[in-house]
Parts: sequence; structure tokens; C-alpha cells
Amino acid sequence: MDKLLPKPVRASATQISDLTNPPDANVRGTVFGGVVLAMVDKAAAVAAMRHAGKPCVTVAMDRVEFLVPIRVGDLVTAEARLHYAGRTSMEIGVDVYAENLAAGTRRHTNSCFVTMVALDDIGRPAPVPGLLLETPEEKARHAAAEGRRKVRRAS
Amino acid sequence: MDKLLPKPVRASATQISDLTNPPDANVRGTVFGGVVLAMVDKAAAVAAMRHAGKPCVTVAMDRVEFLVPIRVGDLVTAEARLHYAGRTSMEIGVDVYAENLAAGTRRHTNSCFVTMVALDDIGRPAPVPGLLLETPEEKARHAAAEGRRKVRRAS
Amino acid sequence: MDKLLPKPVRASATQISDLTNPPDANVRGTVFGGVVLAMVDKAAAVAAMRHAGKPCVTVAMDRVEFLVPIRVGDLVTAEARLHYAGRTSMEIGVDVYAENLAAGTRRHTNSCFVTMVALDDIGRPAPVPGLLLETPEEKARHAAAEGRRKVRRAS
Amino acid sequence: MDKLLPKPVRASATQISDLTNPPDANVRGTVFGGVVLAMVDKAAAVAAMRHAGKPCVTVAMDRVEFLVPIRVGDLVTAEARLHYAGRTSMEIGVDVYAENLAAGTRRHTNSCFVTMVALDDIGRPAPVPGLLLETPEEKARHAAAEGRRKVRRAS
Amino acid sequence: MDKLLPKPVRASATQISDLTNPPDANVRGTVFGGVVLAMVDKAAAVAAMRHAGKPCVTVAMDRVEFLVPIRVGDLVTAEARLHYAGRTSMEIGVDVYAENLAAGTRRHTNSCFVTMVALDDIGRPAPVPGLLLETPEEKARHAAAEGRRKVRRAS
Amino acid sequence: MDKLLPKPVRASATQISDLTNPPDANVRGTVFGGVVLAMVDKAAAVAAMRHAGKPCVTVAMDRVEFLVPIRVGDLVTAEARLHYAGRTSMEIGVDVYAENLAAGTRRHTNSCFVTMVALDDIGRPAPVPGLLLETPEEKARHAAAEGRRKVRRAS
Repeated sequence: MDKLLPKPVRASATQISDLTNPPDANVRGTVFGGVVLAMVDKAAAVAAMRHAGKPCVTVAMDRVEFLVPIRVGDLVTAEARLHYAGRTSMEIGVDVYAENLAAGTRRHTNSCFVTMVALDDIGRPAPVPGLLLETPEEKARHAAAEGRRKVRRAS
Repeated sequence: MDKLLPKPVRASATQISDLTNPPDANVRGTVFGGVVLAMVDKAAAVAAMRHAGKPCVTVAMDRVEFLVPIRVGDLVTAEARLHYAGRTSMEIGVDVYAENLAAGTRRHTNSCFVTMVALDDIGRPAPVPGLLLETPEEKARHAAAEGRRKVRRAS
Repeated sequence: MDKLLPKPVRASATQISDLTNPPDANVRGTVFGGVVLAMVDKAAAVAAMRHAGKPCVTVAMDRVEFLVPIRVGDLVTAEARLHYAGRTSMEIGVDVYAENLAAGTRRHTNSCFVTMVALDDIGRPAPVPGLLLETPEEKARHAAAEGRRKVRRAS
Repeated sequence: MDKLLPKPVRASATQISDLTNPPDANVRGTVFGGVVLAMVDKAAAVAAMRHAGKPCVTVAMDRVEFLVPIRVGDLVTAEARLHYAGRTSMEIGVDVYAENLAAGTRRHTNSCFVTMVALDDIGRPAPVPGLLLETPEEKARHAAAEGRRKVRRAS
Repeated sequence: MDKLLPKPVRASATQISDLTNPPDANVRGTVFGGVVLAMVDKAAAVAAMRHAGKPCVTVAMDRVEFLVPIRVGDLVTAEARLHYAGRTSMEIGVDVYAENLAAGTRRHTNSCFVTMVALDDIGRPAPVPGLLLETPEEKARHAAAEGRRKVRRAS
Repeated sequence: MDKLLPKPVRASATQISDLTNPPDANVRGTVFGGVVLAMVDKAAAVAAMRHAGKPCVTVAMDRVEFLVPIRVGDLVTAEARLHYAGRTSMEIGVDVYAENLAAGTRRHTNSCFVTMVALDDIGRPAPVPGLLLETPEEKARHAAAEGRRKVRRAS
């Protein structure tokens, strides 16, 4: 089964971008947390589906901090890449950036770990390909994800 | 200053409800995680603003699990209540329920802790009233929130 | 048939809430009448479906007055409760409130009577349970609804 | 003051049309009552602003019946025309039609009377031009509107 | 087959109108080009479906210029009419107007040619009725559309 | 003035991606042309603002063909890059791709040339940096854009 040959991290790396507009913001001109979380969820889902070659659903989204406000008009980019692939589940790391296009500045605003699971045609968890780790950074992220996984199973 | 007299938990307890519709769902008929997270954020913000009597913004949203899918057409309710009030920040607990109106069934789908901070007129953190704990459950939730707060500060 | 045992008014009483945002408002910062009417319709539909245990559709919405403007940022709450249950149709009363969260004030902005009908699987009107009236207020509202119903049939 | 010269009904007659899409519909493929009411409100506001030459807000929307369902994909048209112009308020009649474009059929689905008031720069009721009645139908509608107005004032 | 009797241009002439609101605009208060193009596409589709009596899809949208900005609050109207009907495709001309309701002024903002094709039940191109040209303007527009068609085929 | 030093094409190259959802589609499950055109317009605006370091508005969008339908659930990506920079205006080329994530297939669906102009603080056309051409492809695209520009000025 071709689809289950291991795949490298770069094969599913994903970048989702959108220009924020007035409907995305509260009355103070700051983009809603919900808009950011929806982009994080979308980017993670695309990376997971590219890796699995199957529909995927969100199992959990880890703690997200909102320390840097995003302003209406910024270009928001969510970058997602797989950290870990288990039998049917995957951990995806997502980084969010806000770019002020007129000023030419770009800030890192949020980071998050998302767990997704692949589904077969009738909605049961389905096997996913293994993950080929090609760089030291990928290996370090994989080890950290495995650590988080053990902590969660233990708790 | 009247507003800084301590307030009981029940004074800011909040319930946000919405009937989910096709635009809220993916192609499988399941409501997007982003829609749920937006309701969690909204309910927490309303509870925080009711307690603080000031505009509030989200500082962090803790890990959320999506173990129970919500279907298009369900009534989704997010119930928020304060667990802890510090000098300018608050921890709010949010529980999400999905109700199938035709079947008359209601399921608990998600729980989450949200941290919000009150802001003054120029956007700086502003003091919030103390929190009056009236029931044993409120005291237990307050103790647990204080524990989480210490863990975060230590890490 | 269990579902057709009479049900008390409180079993289907409904509260729908939402924080209004810029997309809900016109250029003057006032929330559109259409946004309010959509909430009235939603709250009435939820109450009707809770009572009937079946899909319900709107048959008529009575005169609504917009005497109190709602501002962007207000929490809008629509409270619905059954006044009358006929063989297949129901009259639901809906009250709308707008709450300024920073000021801690809450105003009653609109009231409306909505008529809904329950549907069976192929879209024909379907029988609904009787309505148990438990309080003097419920009895008074029921009598008024019956009066309105007779006036409409006569006209 | 030019603007307050009487204007004929046809000068402000308004037609608003939109093709309905999936986000406008419930899970049964029927367009929400709220979508229809928003179009009724919009068409009435346009007619009122054309007549008044000033911003106008909705004061009341009369009873609307939903006897004919509108399907996703239909072209919905709301036609509005002034029935009556008082000192600062106007009654506008709105008729809604749904057209199945493939079948070439068009059905009248709803009718409604909307009362709007013109506003000056600081939001107070402002005078509007008189209404020139040019046809027997316009005169009949004006008389009926005046009758409704008296009934409301008396009640 | 009744449907393929030639039809006059006026039988499918279409007018789509909408009041623009804050969600339609960028941070400068100017309505997005995308909102205008969506209305152009919608008006052309309605005219094509009225002529063909079948579902139609967009094949191409010609160059559109945005020389006149549209402001939030303007009533935008797209007027579409058939210029040319081939065996399965149609050219539709669309003119866009923006009306400032308070000032009573109306400006022509955009013009565009849209090519649409009719589809049968399984999504293949389907024959459309011929086009009856009744006025000199209709004949001139038809000749120009035929010229554009030849240029495209040649290039 | 730093900002007006010439910039290479790669400095403003832009990629906008979004996962299409039910609200983006018509009743046949095909994504609306309007949704695609809005992404084209957005990607071109981001590239133009990155190059100009100033707000930019759309002046014209060239002919777009819709020969390959996009299905709900596809990841749509618009890639934009500058072809030409004049004194205050820029031509941007945009390519649209649709990716079926489960199948792992990606199709080129549309191409378009967009003309944008930079604005100063009071909305007048403002000078933009020159464009550094670094590759043979960039030089060929620049020459073609200059040719289109002359044709338009002549017509």
C-alpha cells in the first residue's frame, strides 16, 4: 500500500495565509482569538491530510497564548508541520505570524500543538504513514512530541 | 470605588447559545473546532467583562479536547464562570454542551480554562474586583486554578 | 406515545445569547434589525423543537417594534417560552435584552410573538404535546394567545 | 428647501434581489426566515432613504407570514414602495418573490408593512417630504396605511 | 421543445441590488473589488439561467476596471443583459452602479462581459435558446460580442 | 528615501491559501467564481503592498477563465508576483491552484493579471520602488507586461 510508505516532514509542511478584514475584529480593532484559532486548526488539518492522504479531524488543541495582538489589515500566516506520527494520530506544530504590509514588519504571535486523527470511509481511526525525520530540528521536535505524548497518557 | 467591591461568582456566570447551521460545518456535517473555540472565547470574555466592568482580552486558552463531535443543527451552549480573580487577570472555566433538539438529548462536549485580563482606557492592564467564593465547588475550583497558576509561573 | 404526554412550559424555555460584533452593525454602529429578528426566530425555533421533539418551521412573526437601539459590543439575549400549543402549531413569546457589559446595564429592547408548526419526516404538519400551565403568569399568557388566535382566524 | 418638495411614490420605489446560497439555509434546504426579514428590512430602508434623502432607521415591522417556503438557489426579490409619509415617519409596503430560475416560475412568498423614521445629523427624528399619490392604487394604499396608523395610535 | 424557442433580450434582463455594509469593506471604508465581482458574477448567472432555463456556470469574466471607488453604505446595483447566445454559451454584459441614498446621486462604476455556459443534468454543455434582437442597441451589442468571440477564437 | 530603492521580485512574492468550505460553494458543490476572484485580488494586493510599502488599491483585473471547477474541501492557493512596476502602478500575475488533499493531486485552475496602484496618506497615487529583474523568466514576464501596457494605452 503506497500510501503507507513513510513520508518526510517537508512533504506535508503547510502555510495558510489570509489578510484580516473588519469582520474579523472586535470593536477595538484587534483580531479575535477565534479567528486565529480557526487558522491554526485549518493549517494543522491541511498538514495532517497531506501526510495521511485521508480526511482528518482535530482531537485536541494545546494551550495557546495571545500575548501579541494582531491588528485589522495585517496578513496572518499559519505555518504547520508534523512533529510526530503514531499509528492513527499525528502531532502538528503551528506557528502564527502577523505581517504589517505597509511597515514591512513581521511578528511571531502564537505557537500551538494540535493533535489530529485520520479517518477511514466510515469514520473510524485509520492508519497513517510513518514520518521520515531528515534534519536535527525535526528529530528534536519529534522527541519533544513523544515526551508530551507520554505525559498525557500518564496523566 | 464601587466597582472594586468583591463580587460573587454567580454575578458574572454566563451562558452563550447558538443553533449551528451549514456554514459552521465541514463537508462531513461536523461543526468546525474553530466555531466551538470562538464560542468558548466569547463566553469567557462576557464572564470576564461582567466581573471586571471593563473591556477584557484573552491572554491564553488552555488545552481543549474534541472527543465528541457536534452535528450541524445541534444547539451549542457554552457556560462560563470565574474560577479565580488576580489583580488584573482572571481564570474562567468554560463547559460546552451540544443538544439534539429533536431527540431531546444533551452531551457535554468540551471543557476549557481561559485566562483574560482587564484593560483600562488606553489598553493597559487594569485592576479587577476580588471574587467572593460562596459554595464548596467554587472554593475547590479556586484552589485548582491557583495551583495551575503557580505551575505556569514556575515553568 | 411518550412524546405526546403534555409538557410544562419550563421544559422548553430557551435562552439564546450572542455578543454583537462589527459585521452585525450598520455604518452608525447600531445593530441591524435583521440580526435581532434572526435571533428572535432562532430562539422561538429552539423552544418549539424542544417542546415538539420534531423539526419546526416558522409560520408567522408578529409585529416587532425597534424603539431601543442596540449598540455593537452589547450582549444580546433572546428569551423564548411557549404560550400556547395547538394540535400542530405553537405560539412562542420572545423577549430581547441588550446588556452593556462594561456599564453593567441591561435593557429590554423588543418583544414578539412567533407561530411555529412541527413537521413530520416528509414535511407535513405533525402533532405536538399539550402544554402544562403551572403558574398564573403562564395561564394568563395562554389565554391571551388563545385570544389572538381567534382574532386571526376571524379576520 | 428643495428636499422637502413632495415626491411621487415611483421616485423611491425599490427592488432588492439576491440569489440564495447554502449559508442562507437550514439543514432542510429552506431559506431562513431571518434571511427574508433582513431583505425586507433592507428594501424598506432603501425606499425610505430615497424618499427622505436622509439616514432612516426601522421603527417597526408588522406581522410577516411564512406560508411559502423559499429553496436554496432561488432568486429572492423584495419590492418596496412608500404607502404613507407623515412628518418624520413613513410606512413602506414590501412584497417578497422567489423565482426558480431553471423552471422559470416565480411565487409571491411574503408581504409586510415596515415603519421607518428619518434622522438628522445628531440622531433626532427629521422631517421628510410629502408623498405625491399619482394612481388609484397609490391612493388606496395610502388610505389603508392611514387607517392602520389610527388603529395603532388608538390601541 | 418549447424551451428552445428563441427568447427576446428583455425576457432575461436582470437587476441585482444590495446595500453595502461594513463587512464588505476594507479598513479605508471602500468596498472590496471581490464584493463587486461577486455581484457581477451573480447578475450574469441569473440572466443566463433565465435565458437557458438550465443551471449555468461561469466560463470567463473579461477585464474589469475599478476606477470609481464604492463607499460603505452605498446601494450597489448590477444590471445584466444577454448580448449573444451561441449553441451552449452566452455573453452577458453587466453594468455596476453605486447610489448614495442620502445625496440622491448614482454613479456608473464598472462594466464587464461575462461568458456563461448552460449545463445538462450530468454537467455537460447543453443547448440554449436563440436570442431575439428587438432594438438597434441590442443588434449593435450582438455584433460587438460576435467580434470579441472571433478575436478570442483566433488568438 | 530607503523605500524607493529597487526591490527584487522575490521580496514581494506572495502565497495566499485557504481551505474551501460549504459557504464558499453553490448548490452543485462547486466553489463560486467570486470566491476565487476575491483570493486573486487579495494575493495581488499583498504582493503590491509588500513591494510598495504603502496601501494599494485595485485598478483593473484582466480576463479570468474558469475552465477547471474547484470542489468544496479543496485547498485553494493563489500565488502572486510582480511583473512590472511603473511610477505609481504595478502589474501582478496571479496563478490559482486547487489541491485535493486526500488524493494528493494539485491542478492549475486560473491565471490573471491584476493592476494595482499605491496610495499616499490622502489617497493620491504615490511612487513605488523600481523592480529588480533577476531571472530570465522575470525578464520575459516584464517584457510581456510592458507590451500589454502599451496595447491598453493605445486602445
